[in-house]
Amino acid sequence: MTTSQRPRVVIIGAGFGGLSAAKSLANKDVDVSLIDKHNHHLFQPLLYQVASAALTAAEIAMPIRHIMRKAENVAVYMNEISAIDQEKKIIRTIYGREFSYDYLVVATGARHSYFGNDQWAEFAPGLKTIEDAREIRQRVLTAFEKAEMAETEKDREDYLNFVIVGAGPTGVELAGAIAELANHTLTGDFHHITPESARIILVDAAPRVLMSFDEELSQKAQKQLESLGVEVRLNCMVKHIEPGYITLGEEKLSARTFIWAAGVQASAAGKWLDAECDRTGRVIVNEHLTLPNNPDIYIIGDTAHYIPEGEERPLPGVAPVAKQMGNFVAQDILARIKNDKRPRFKYKDYGSMATIGRNRAIGDLNGFKVSGFFGWLMWCFAHVYYLIGFKNRLIVAFRWLVSYLTLNRGVRLIIGGGKISDLPHKTPENDYQV
Amino acid sequence: MTTSQRPRVVIIGAGFGGLSAAKSLANKDVDVSLIDKHNHHLFQPLLYQVASAALTAAEIAMPIRHIMRKAENVAVYMNEISAIDQEKKIIRTIYGREFSYDYLVVATGARHSYFGNDQWAEFAPGLKTIEDAREIRQRVLTAFEKAEMAETEKDREDYLNFVIVGAGPTGVELAGAIAELANHTLTGDFHHITPESARIILVDAAPRVLMSFDEELSQKAQKQLESLGVEVRLNCMVKHIEPGYITLGEEKLSARTFIWAAGVQASAAGKWLDAECDRTGRVIVNEHLTLPNNPDIYIIGDTAHYIPEGEERPLPGVAPVAKQMGNFVAQDILARIKNDKRPRFKYKDYGSMATIGRNRAIGDLNGFKVSGFFGWLMWCFAHVYYLIGFKNRLIVAFRWLVSYLTLNRGVRLIIGGGKISDLPHKTPENDYQV
Repeated sequence: MTTSQRPRVVIIGAGFGGLSAAKSLANKDVDVSLIDKHNHHLFQPLLYQVASAALTAAEIAMPIRHIMRKAENVAVYMNEISAIDQEKKIIRTIYGREFSYDYLVVATGARHSYFGNDQWAEFAPGLKTIEDAREIRQRVLTAFEKAEMAETEKDREDYLNFVIVGAGPTGVELAGAIAELANHTLTGDFHHITPESARIILVDAAPRVLMSFDEELSQKAQKQLESLGVEVRLNCMVKHIEPGYITLGEEKLSARTFIWAAGVQASAAGKWLDAECDRTGRVIVNEHLTLPNNPDIYIIGDTAHYIPEGEERPLPGVAPVAKQMGNFVAQDILARIKNDKRPRFKYKDYGSMATIGRNRAIGDLNGFKVSGFFGWLMWCFAHVYYLIGFKNRLIVAFRWLVSYLTLNRGVRLIIGGGKISDLPHKTPENDYQV
Repeated sequence: MTTSQRPRVVIIGAGFGGLSAAKSLANKDVDVSLIDKHNHHLFQPLLYQVASAALTAAEIAMPIRHIMRKAENVAVYMNEISAIDQEKKIIRTIYGREFSYDYLVVATGARHSYFGNDQWAEFAPGLKTIEDAREIRQRVLTAFEKAEMAETEKDREDYLNFVIVGAGPTGVELAGAIAELANHTLTGDFHHITPESARIILVDAAPRVLMSFDEELSQKAQKQLESLGVEVRLNCMVKHIEPGYITLGEEKLSARTFIWAAGVQASAAGKWLDAECDRTGRVIVNEHLTLPNNPDIYIIGDTAHYIPEGEERPLPGVAPVAKQMGNFVAQDILARIKNDKRPRFKYKDYGSMATIGRNRAIGDLNGFKVSGFFGWLMWCFAHVYYLIGFKNRLIVAFRWLVSYLTLNRGVRLIIGGGKISDLPHKTPENDYQV
């Protein structure tokens, strides 16, 4: 409302990167506008738990303006970008309002990609937003309901086949969580089916699961998955997905529930900025994380392609990278305003983890490898610790404790559509109707 | 799966009535099929707390098959009824499967009614299901977001006007909860608006709020509402609702968010059964709660019209009536099977309560009247006590405690659609787009 002569910073996106930048600029001598198309920040690493009915959306999301309420210089807007005018230094939005900037931070993340087969999206939803997680939860839970009512053995089997494409962390975590759901949580709840007879099939074209970890941990993860009853199919290409069928290599497999956890595609930032991108759409940035030809536009997180000096591969699209980038650009902006020295971006890698089912995880913490139950404890601690919001932390910890002790998932609600007649399950016979 | 000679009972609907019937028949010598179009039982009295961002859906809902898991003779189906064939004693469903019955319990509840103005539904959603609650929450929260970005003072004011039609328990509870949201929870979260300046207008054609309570309690409730900043407009008819405007008597009021808490319409059971109904669609039943001309079909809860002997008005559509009816019909069915004596239905009224905002309530417990903070404590106790599921009880109690102490609502998520461009707010200028 007040006009000021302070430098204006506009941050687009309140994921790990944008939020970290906003927090580092809080109560500094700049005016910050933080714009996101959602009203909440999402703790994405736990999204698979919403998809598998272990947590509610509210437990892993937090209103952005509540997180930033103590920051008087940060205004939060729920809005969507329609264009960036680099010459006039203006952001245009779908809501009509314009935002002028001196410095722009683009942190608009990524979506899943179907490698050019966008028509598969309808049959095999991906997992990036809360809506995605609800969609998957709904399909998985409804599949068991429909299996219970199936009139032929074939129908029953088809409804109990779950195919997850992509054995990266998301695919592995989803497969483990759905296996737990079938083998423990739902046991005894049905009269005509045994949920334990569900087949959970995890498919990847790569030769091993969790390719970003080393081979020893990959093998441990695969063993842990198999001990939960997950069928792991490696070196296996998805050729086609259609209602009721997925073609894996030469085999046509009959199933009703498919989940896509394979490719990733960066946001459209590259197009807005008319910038050079890599093949997944990430914008190539320099050592200050700006466009090479425009020092006032920073790109961070899953939308940025940055190869650290002396390395070969760009930094991965994970939360710690985004957070460190967000903090870095905030410091860089402040340094420029004060004409201070500007260091280049350096990523400090503390390691990575992936969880498998209810009480196992693997982790590589800078060469210190953990797995099994001890890995899971570390994973729990790290995730609860990083969850934003005191209340959420306590509730999540409490819910996990109760879930762990009772195997009861309190969140097994089929909502959205809600009535069975509104729920999607494409079958060969009839579209979205059973 | 097994054929049996036991009497078959089909229960349609797993609200308070149907669930109570199923529980009373659990592990008795009958085969029960419990059919509901949702997979969850909903604790409807707290639905307004989901709509006003105080609780999550998972905290007031529970999977039906989980509730019934210990009942080996009760099979749960997520399905929808398409027809009832009274001659063949068969239920037909949209899923295709048929259910034969010896005894049928219809407990299909009620929806809100727009008194013949169904075109208002789009502008003024009602509150009966979880989807409804989410829709209202989304509209209320988005209104504040859009007010924050409004470019004219008029727009800003319009987005901060909330009109609730109907001053029964749902309307009163919603008005109080939205007032608390504006006056306490959201305070300090915005830069361009003061949420406290929101107008919450509660409208009813009746001469007082909460007509089902006595006049003294009505007046107390009105005072408590007004102390929260709610404008109560009585003797005031809604003539018209259109995008951006509501016409109250002669006044055309400009607003963007309308909520409908006025009329109630029973489910379509009357039509399926070709039975005599009252003007809100409730089926007229006899003292055994069956159709007068078909002793094998029971109707209970919000779908039943039953006037106890010696009284003038039918029993109200509230949870205790439905629960007692459900238990009664279960006992009546068992009595018939054993050729026992069949008593007539008698309702035992323990009183009723309504809550106003964060820490006030009124109640009439068989002439023992409570109000204010003490009333609220009783209300809390009663509602947490009746919430199904041990974990839910603890989580709700814990969340309420934290909410009460911190005034922070953890559930302020705008989901469904999710992105601001997908969110509805009809304005005079452009439909569902701002």
